[in-house]
Amino acid sequence: MSEVFAARRARLRDRCVAAGSAAALISRPANVRYLAGGAPPGAVLLLGPAGDTDDVLLCPSAPTGDPVEGRMDELLRQIVLPTDGGDPAVAAARSADTDGADSLAVEENHLTVARHRALATVTPHLRLADLGGAVEQQRMVKDEDEIACLRIAAEITDQALGELLESILVGRTERHLALELERRLVDHGADGPAFPTSVATGPHAGRGGHRPSDRRVEEGDFLSVCLGANYRGYRCEIGRTFVIGTTPADWQIELYELVFAAQRAGREALVPGAGYRDVDRAARHVLDAAGYGEGLAPSTGHGVGLEIDEDPQLAPAAMGKLDACVPVTVEPGVHLPGRGGVRIDDTLVVRQEADGGPELLTITTKELLAL
Amino acid sequence: MSEVFAARRARLRDRCVAAGSAAALISRPANVRYLAGGAPPGAVLLLGPAGDTDDVLLCPSAPTGDPVEGRMDELLRQIVLPTDGGDPAVAAARSADTDGADSLAVEENHLTVARHRALATVTPHLRLADLGGAVEQQRMVKDEDEIACLRIAAEITDQALGELLESILVGRTERHLALELERRLVDHGADGPAFPTSVATGPHAGRGGHRPSDRRVEEGDFLSVCLGANYRGYRCEIGRTFVIGTTPADWQIELYELVFAAQRAGREALVPGAGYRDVDRAARHVLDAAGYGEGLAPSTGHGVGLEIDEDPQLAPAAMGKLDACVPVTVEPGVHLPGRGGVRIDDTLVVRQEADGGPELLTITTKELLAL
Repeated sequence: MSEVFAARRARLRDRCVAAGSAAALISRPANVRYLAGGAPPGAVLLLGPAGDTDDVLLCPSAPTGDPVEGRMDELLRQIVLPTDGGDPAVAAARSADTDGADSLAVEENHLTVARHRALATVTPHLRLADLGGAVEQQRMVKDEDEIACLRIAAEITDQALGELLESILVGRTERHLALELERRLVDHGADGPAFPTSVATGPHAGRGGHRPSDRRVEEGDFLSVCLGANYRGYRCEIGRTFVIGTTPADWQIELYELVFAAQRAGREALVPGAGYRDVDRAARHVLDAAGYGEGLAPSTGHGVGLEIDEDPQLAPAAMGKLDACVPVTVEPGVHLPGRGGVRIDDTLVVRQEADGGPELLTITTKELLAL
Repeated sequence: MSEVFAARRARLRDRCVAAGSAAALISRPANVRYLAGGAPPGAVLLLGPAGDTDDVLLCPSAPTGDPVEGRMDELLRQIVLPTDGGDPAVAAARSADTDGADSLAVEENHLTVARHRALATVTPHLRLADLGGAVEQQRMVKDEDEIACLRIAAEITDQALGELLESILVGRTERHLALELERRLVDHGADGPAFPTSVATGPHAGRGGHRPSDRRVEEGDFLSVCLGANYRGYRCEIGRTFVIGTTPADWQIELYELVFAAQRAGREALVPGAGYRDVDRAARHVLDAAGYGEGLAPSTGHGVGLEIDEDPQLAPAAMGKLDACVPVTVEPGVHLPGRGGVRIDDTLVVRQEADGGPELLTITTKELLAL
């Protein structure tokens, strides 16, 4: 694996050098993990000017004792700072300054103002430049190993959800169902949930990111769940809505079919070269035309990977076009205050049409199940 | 409750005005919650110059639909920004600029460089000052309502741990035991775990913040657990170490007694007026004198409240003295690489001697139990 991480760092280094900085300091944990294979808590990565032999991972003395990730780049030099050695970012900047770099690119969208000032104070000879979202952009297109991790994460997620559907739901609280789903994710091999599991019943159903409450599942409810596994750091997401009990009401069937049509339209728009905003519009338009334009979420989906919500954003004002091998969610929903609603969410990988079109990772049925 | 939050805001406003800023922008979620009673995701609080009628909570359009907390200050004006209304901090700064404030204090230890720059761009007439850790300092001494929440959080935590001790442990994995503890916390009324539950067996035992793995509990192991409940936002922490099976080995008994003595020394040093570093030294000295000075964690304990790790830090270089009504953890530990170790952790509230001395919130026994 080491060559994968070294190649990623080389690509970033080229970009930094082209922008005028021979050295770069990476502090955002997902970016550190992407470039080093692992991110011990608080660790920062310093990319030096001379190529791979200059790169170093600076770890705070680890009172937490977290084991370093299994897929870590073993060839990368690691320095563990002494106990109470202070901020590793400051130590890294000092080292770059000593090594005679004249410009250090830092992540201004991650470093706090206070931390940035601390760096500037210890590096009188160094110009601090902004790395911007360079690593986030590099992370957007995934390689097949990354997609394999996402595929396993999705399999685990489908399994956990499938088991829940076989159990008795009426009378149980949102909070307990969410905990049970998270336990099942781990049972099936997840490192943990990819994000806090959401279970929403009755009037809560269909709200994105609903935090589970003590409300119990009742006959006639819509039930929406949103969960995902974290597998080797890679996070996927699935959202489904069900009806509880006998026969769905007419309004439930109509609303479900509408959201399903919107979600399908979004999925079908996932082709390399499509604008982010075009995918959003494809799904949004269906809901808008049915009179639900107000109150929709600001985006219809987003990238996933080492973070559960990363670039690209599928939103009305988003600039940019999809590439092949970009995994995204498509997750439109409608929530009617006081009544509940529907949300359907899949994780897919954008693929060329010749390769079969978008690859659906989360394969749990999207029929309206009455449980 | 509203008057509590208004009084907290008034106190902060006085402090800002004295420092030359008539307005302040609070973005750190725990600080927003402390001053407003609740913190919807992404919300920021703008304290205006004219007193309470000027204060406003700016919430991003909530696609996540999270319910606003139950104890929210209902009298506080709340503005929900339109969908995709951008960063509420930018909207708040623009509003302060329009209202003619000439200086706005912001949390430089929370805002990123990129976000700070966005604020500066929209507020040409406004000087951005640094609020520093003013709210964090104000949060250190708790009122009796806050301590009551911590007390309930500790009761829940003791219950969850007590139930685990009655179950069969041998053969179960760290990961499953951690998930079960978290489920029990919620069963007993927690809003959730205060932090990721740590379960460490055998060679992992005694490592602070160990992430649960698939290792199974074996006869003869040390088993250390660290968990805590979040109750109405207030978070406590308990850590205990047990031996599994028949009779502890001599080295286990000796190590346990040593860490127990260190932890007791730390607890006994908790008196109003004691230096933070003196509490740390009381516990650290015991371990140091026994030859375990190397490899100790950089601190012996820390404040708890709306965050699980807040001021004060009980560490060798920490400046400052304890006040009454400050809740802290005391959590020394020793880890022997390859063999495991012991960690004992309580949450206590500093009290005057006349009031009975430090109030122990986490009352699970600290005898060495063989399970």
